[in-house]
Amino acid sequence: MASALHQLKIFIFWRAIVANSRLTGFIGFLLLASCAFVIPSNLRAQGEGSLLVMPVPAHVVQREGEFLIDGAFGIALKGYKEARLERAQQRFLDTLSRETGIPLWRQAVLNPPHFTVQTAGPSAAVQQLGEDESYHLEISTTDVQLTAPNPIGVLRGLQTFLQLVRITPRGFSVPVVTVDDKPRFPWRGLLIDSGHRFVHISAIKRNLDGMEAVKLNVFHWRFADNQGFHIQSKKFPLLQEKGSGGFYYSQDEVREIIAYASDRGIRVVPEFDMPCHTTSWFLGYPELASGQDPSHSSAIDPTRENTYKFLNGFIGEMAVLFPDSYFHAGGDECDAKEWEGNLRIQDFMRAHAIKDGAALQVLFTAKIQKIIEGRKKIMVGWDEVLQPDTPKDVVIQSWRGPNSLAEAARNGYRGVLSSGYYIDLNQSAAEHYLVDPLGDSAATLTSDQKALVLGGEATMWTDIVSDENMDNRIWPRSAAIAERLWSAQQVQDVDSMYQRLAIISRKLGYYGLRHRLITDEMLERMSGELDPAPLKVLAAVVQPPRLYERQELRTFTDFTPLNRLDDAVPPESDTAREFNEIARRIASGKATPQEWQQAREWLGLWRDNDAKLQPLLRRSYLTQDLAPVSHNLSRIAEIGLQALDDLHENRLVSADLRQRNIEFLKSSGKPQAVLLLMVAPSVELLVQATRAQKYFFLACCVKGNW
Amino acid sequence: MASALHQLKIFIFWRAIVANSRLTGFIGFLLLASCAFVIPSNLRAQGEGSLLVMPVPAHVVQREGEFLIDGAFGIALKGYKEARLERAQQRFLDTLSRETGIPLWRQAVLNPPHFTVQTAGPSAAVQQLGEDESYHLEISTTDVQLTAPNPIGVLRGLQTFLQLVRITPRGFSVPVVTVDDKPRFPWRGLLIDSGHRFVHISAIKRNLDGMEAVKLNVFHWRFADNQGFHIQSKKFPLLQEKGSGGFYYSQDEVREIIAYASDRGIRVVPEFDMPCHTTSWFLGYPELASGQDPSHSSAIDPTRENTYKFLNGFIGEMAVLFPDSYFHAGGDECDAKEWEGNLRIQDFMRAHAIKDGAALQVLFTAKIQKIIEGRKKIMVGWDEVLQPDTPKDVVIQSWRGPNSLAEAARNGYRGVLSSGYYIDLNQSAAEHYLVDPLGDSAATLTSDQKALVLGGEATMWTDIVSDENMDNRIWPRSAAIAERLWSAQQVQDVDSMYQRLAIISRKLGYYGLRHRLITDEMLERMSGELDPAPLKVLAAVVQPPRLYERQELRTFTDFTPLNRLDDAVPPESDTAREFNEIARRIASGKATPQEWQQAREWLGLWRDNDAKLQPLLRRSYLTQDLAPVSHNLSRIAEIGLQALDDLHENRLVSADLRQRNIEFLKSSGKPQAVLLLMVAPSVELLVQATRAQKYFFLACCVKGNW
Repeated sequence: MASALHQLKIFIFWRAIVANSRLTGFIGFLLLASCAFVIPSNLRAQGEGSLLVMPVPAHVVQREGEFLIDGAFGIALKGYKEARLERAQQRFLDTLSRETGIPLWRQAVLNPPHFTVQTAGPSAAVQQLGEDESYHLEISTTDVQLTAPNPIGVLRGLQTFLQLVRITPRGFSVPVVTVDDKPRFPWRGLLIDSGHRFVHISAIKRNLDGMEAVKLNVFHWRFADNQGFHIQSKKFPLLQEKGSGGFYYSQDEVREIIAYASDRGIRVVPEFDMPCHTTSWFLGYPELASGQDPSHSSAIDPTRENTYKFLNGFIGEMAVLFPDSYFHAGGDECDAKEWEGNLRIQDFMRAHAIKDGAALQVLFTAKIQKIIEGRKKIMVGWDEVLQPDTPKDVVIQSWRGPNSLAEAARNGYRGVLSSGYYIDLNQSAAEHYLVDPLGDSAATLTSDQKALVLGGEATMWTDIVSDENMDNRIWPRSAAIAERLWSAQQVQDVDSMYQRLAIISRKLGYYGLRHRLITDEMLERMSGELDPAPLKVLAAVVQPPRLYERQELRTFTDFTPLNRLDDAVPPESDTAREFNEIARRIASGKATPQEWQQAREWLGLWRDNDAKLQPLLRRSYLTQDLAPVSHNLSRIAEIGLQALDDLHENRLVSADLRQRNIEFLKSSGKPQAVLLLMVAPSVELLVQATRAQKYFFLACCVKGNW
Repeated sequence: MASALHQLKIFIFWRAIVANSRLTGFIGFLLLASCAFVIPSNLRAQGEGSLLVMPVPAHVVQREGEFLIDGAFGIALKGYKEARLERAQQRFLDTLSRETGIPLWRQAVLNPPHFTVQTAGPSAAVQQLGEDESYHLEISTTDVQLTAPNPIGVLRGLQTFLQLVRITPRGFSVPVVTVDDKPRFPWRGLLIDSGHRFVHISAIKRNLDGMEAVKLNVFHWRFADNQGFHIQSKKFPLLQEKGSGGFYYSQDEVREIIAYASDRGIRVVPEFDMPCHTTSWFLGYPELASGQDPSHSSAIDPTRENTYKFLNGFIGEMAVLFPDSYFHAGGDECDAKEWEGNLRIQDFMRAHAIKDGAALQVLFTAKIQKIIEGRKKIMVGWDEVLQPDTPKDVVIQSWRGPNSLAEAARNGYRGVLSSGYYIDLNQSAAEHYLVDPLGDSAATLTSDQKALVLGGEATMWTDIVSDENMDNRIWPRSAAIAERLWSAQQVQDVDSMYQRLAIISRKLGYYGLRHRLITDEMLERMSGELDPAPLKVLAAVVQPPRLYERQELRTFTDFTPLNRLDDAVPPESDTAREFNEIARRIASGKATPQEWQQAREWLGLWRDNDAKLQPLLRRSYLTQDLAPVSHNLSRIAEIGLQALDDLHENRLVSADLRQRNIEFLKSSGKPQAVLLLMVAPSVELLVQATRAQKYFFLACCVKGNW
C-alpha cells in the first residue's frame, strides 16, 4: 500500500481534499444552564472554560472549581473486578505520578479513596468489534466517580481524567466537570508495518500506550513484505529462519503484545499480505513463488494446490495465535504481469477460462477467504479483494478513499478508511483531521449503509521510517485522526485541534513516546555539535516534501541510513504554521502589535542564522548539502523584513523588484536537499500584500542586495 | 550512610579536599615518534590530536587518518567464543547504529568483516575481583582489530571504539589509533540504594548500560533500609510482604539483573545493611527488633540467639541468589542508645562484660562475618565494621575518607573508597574527580599497602531522589569518577575532563539514559507551559545547595514529591561554570573580545529574563517561590553589566556603591528557595576587579536604580 503504485491515485485524492477543505470556522458559543456550562461536542471547545482533551468527549458539563491532586489522593475499584482493572489502576497511578511528580504509584491505593471506579460487569473474553466503550466521569471539588458498563469503558475514562490534569496556583488539579462519552466509530486503528522493517517490541509497546491515551482500539500489525518475514511460524520455521535475517517476533513475544494491547482495550488484527508483497516467504519456501527465480518473485503462485495446503496450515497456526475475530489477508497491489508472463500459469488460466491476472487474484482471494472462514474468523482485505462474489462479511480496508468505501457500503460491505490517514506521507494534522470516513460521497449513504462504515486506520508504513524516527511520524498527528474517529462529525475546528494537539503531544511523553525528543537528538548527531542551535533554527521551518515526492528526490533502499535532516524533522513545522497564521493576519491588516513584533523577531532570527550555520554545515557530510537551504532562508527573511517595513509604512514598492522577489520566493519554496522551506509561501503573502508602483524608479527607501 | 549523622564529618572532609585541590594545570606536550603521536596517559590529552574518550586509556598512539563507518561495515568474532560475546557484538552494533543512524544492527554480521574481535580465552564463570580487563585496539584506515585475553577485555575495548566515533566531512569515522589499556583499580563501583526508595528495574538496567560505557565494574545493590525491604525472600516472605508496600524485586528479576550485569562485565554485590537501618525488617519479623515497639526500632537485637538463626537462614538464601564472592553486610550508623536504653540488652551486656553499644556491634559483626564466611563469601562492610579482631579478608568501604582507608591498609585490610564520591550531595564533577583513593595520607603507603586499596564507589543514595531524576544525579558526573578509578593517577586535568565529560554525556543518551532530558521535562511540568523558555534561563544558572545543606532548607519525608526546581536542575550548572571561567579571565585582564561579548550576552539575557518569567511563575504553585530568585538574577546581571562597562572603560567607581553591590552579591549567593544562584560569585569577581574611588561622590557615569 505504500509503494509508488498508489502515488497518482492518492495525489488526485489529496487534491480533492485540499479543494474541499476550506477550514470553515465554527462560531463558538456557550449555553449557560444554571451555573453550568454545557458544551455540546458539535460546538467549538476553546478558551478558559473548555476541556483541553483529545478526543473531544461526546458530552461535557463543566462547572466552577477544581479537584486537587496531592499526596492524599486515593483510588479504589468497586463493583466488578478483574486483574486487568488492577493493572489499569496501577498504570493510571504510574502515569498520574509522572504527570505530577507526586509519588502516588505506591500510596494512592492505601489512602482513603476520593476517586472511585465503579465497573458494572465484564467485557467479552476476547475484545469484540463494537463493544461498549462508554463511561461516565463525574468530578466535584471533593470526589471523582468513574462509572462504566465494563472494563473497556473504565480504561477510556481513566485516560480522560489523566488528560484533564493541569497545574494551577493551588496545585495539580482537574476541573469540576461531568463527562458522558462514547465513540462515534467502533474501529479506530493504527497500522504498524513490521514487514518492510522489523520494529522492535519496545517501540510497539510505547505506541500501544499512546494509542490507549487517545482511545484508539485496533492495532493492525503487519508482519511480512518483500523485504522480510518477521514472525515465528512453528509449522513453517523456514519462513523466519530464511526470511527474517534473524529478527522476528517469537510467538511468546506476540502473545505478550496481544496481552499488552488487551490490557489497554486494544484489539490486535494481524495482517499477512498475500498473494503479493511476498518475496520474503520464498526464501524458505521457494515452491510458493510464481516466478522461476523465487528471489525476484513477489507473488504467490495461485494455481498450485500445494499453495493452499501451505496457506491452510499457516493461516490455521496464526488464527490460533491471534485471538481476534478478524484476520487481514492483504491482497493489495498485485502485479498481474508476473502471472501473465509465466507459461505454466498461462496454461492454467486458459484451462480455467481466467481472463487476466486480476481475475486470477479473485480466485485466490476466494480460496483464502474460505480458509479464514473455516477458522471462524472474518477476513479483512485491502480494496482489491472486493469483487462481485466476495462474501458480505468481508471487511474492506480502503486506501482508495471514502468514495470507494461508500461504494462498498452501497453493496452491503463493511469498510475501514485508511486513505487520507497515511501518516508516512508527511501531510499536516489538519489534512488528516478533515478527512471523514463518512465524507465525500459517503455523506449520501442511508443510515443503514453508514453503519457499515466501521471507522478508520492511520497507517505507519515503514518503507522510509526507522524505530528511531517512527514516533515523530505517528505522533502527535495520530491523535487528530483518533479524534476524527471518536468525536462527533461536527467537531472540526482546526485551531482548537492544534491547540489541544500541542497539549496531548506533551502528555504523550509521559507514556514514553519519543516524538518530541527525536529531532534534537538527530540534529546533534548529524552535526556532531553538542548544541547545534543554528541548525535547530533551520530545522524548525523545514519539512520533508509531502506524499510521494520525497521518494522522487532521494533514493531509498532498505538499507539507506535514515539520518538526514528530512528524516529528523517532524512531518509538520509548527513554527512555520504559526508564522503563516501571523503573515495572513498582517497581510489582511488584522494583526496585533504583538504579532508584528513576533514576525519581526522570527524573520530577524532567520536572516541572521545563515552566518552562524554555514561553518557548522561544512563539518559534517550529513549537513553539507544544506548550505543553499540555509542561504535561501536568510534571503527569504530579508525579503520578509523589507515587506514588513513596506507594509508598516504603507510604501509603494518597485513592481519589478516585487515581482523578482515573488519569483524567488516561489522558487525557494520548492524542494531543495529533500526539504521544503515552509516559510517561503508566508513571506510571499506579505510581499503580495505590498503596493506596487506601476513604473519602476529607484526607491530610496528600498534596501537590500539583490 | 546518607543520613545527617555523616554531615559534619563529610563537611570537614570536603573542606580539606577543596583546600587541597588547587587545580594544578598540567603542561601538555606531544612526543613525536616517527609519524605517530605518543600520548602517555599521564600527560594532558587535549586538542585536535587527542582522544575524546573517558576514561583516558593507559596508552595511546595516534596516527594520521580515519577509518570510515558506513553501510559496508562488517564485524566478526574470532578465537574463543561464547554467547555473551555474541550478545556483546549485537549490543555494540545496536549502539553503533544509534550513534550513526546507519542500520548496522542487522547487516554488519553479514558484511565482510573489517572489524575483527579476537578473544584468547574465557573469563571466570563468575566474574572475580581483579580479573584481567585489558584490551588492545588497533585501528587503521582499512581495518580494526580488537584483541583481549578474555571477554571482559573485549567489552571494555568495544566501548572505547564506540566513544571514538564522530562525524566528519567524509562520514562517520574513528581516528587511526592504537590503544593499549587496562584499569588502575580493580573495584570501580556504583551503589544504587533500593532501600530508601524502590528503584524500578528499567532504571537499574539503563544505569548498568551507562556503567558499561564508562568501564565501571561493580554494581553495589542495596535492598533495604528503615523505609522498605525491597527484595523477595522465599525463606522469610513476610520481609517483602509486610516491608515492601508491594514493590520488591522478585528473585527472577534479581537473576535477570545479575545476568544483565554479567553480560556487561559488571559484578553485582548485594548489601543487606545490619544491624541498623532495619525498621522495615521488623514489620514482618518483629521479634528481630531491639525496641519494644518494632515500628519505632531501627536496630536488630544482637543479644538473641534467634536473631542469628534467622540471619543464618536469610544470608544463606541470599548467598545462593547472588553468585559474587563478596557480600555486603552494611554495619553503618548504629545508634547505640537504642541498645543502651533497653533493660534486657543492658542485662546481656553486663553479663558478657560488653561496655557499650559499639562493643555490642563488634560482637554482632563477628557473628555475621562467620555466617558469611560459612557461605564461602567475603564480607564487605562500612567503616564501622573495622575493629581490632576483624578478620583480614573483610573489605572496608569507607565513607570517612582516604585517611580512614589508609589506616585500614596499614593494618592489612583491603578497602574501597566512597567518601568524596557521594553523588547525591550535589558536588561538582571536579570535586569528585580530584578525590583519589590513594590521595591524602594514603599517598604515603608502601606499594604493598597501596595494593590493598581496591578502588572506589560512587554512591547513589535515594533519600531525596526518584526514578525520574536519578539519572541526572548519577550522570554525567559518575563518568569523572570512573575515569579517576580507571586511568592513571596523573590524569588530573580538569578542563580536559569537562571537555570530554560533555561528549560522553551526550553519548550516554544512546544507552537510554535520561539525564539530559529530565530538566526540561520537569520544567514543563512545574510551569504547565509547553515551552517555559524564561524558566529554562533561570534553571541553567541555579544549583541545589551542596552536601547536607539542602535537607536543612527543605523538609523531606519518604513521600515528598520531588518535583520542584531544586529536584529538576542538574547538580552542577555548566553555564555558571563557563561564565565563571570567563569572569575570571575578564577580571584578570586576559579575556578575548569573544569572551567579553559572551559575558555581555549572558548578562543581558539574565537581566531581561525576570520581566518575562514573573507572570509565568505566578501560574503554578511549584514556581511561586522562585519570584525573588528570578528578581535577584536580574539584579546580579545589572550589576555585572555595569561592572563590565566600568572595567572596559577602566572607570573609577564609587567605593560605597561598590561595597553595597558586593554585599548584595554575597547575600544573593546564599540559598533561596533551596537554590543557589551560581553566577553571583562570578559577578562579584567582576565587581572586585573594578577600581574604587576612596571618597564617595556622584559619579555621573554610574547608572542604575539602586
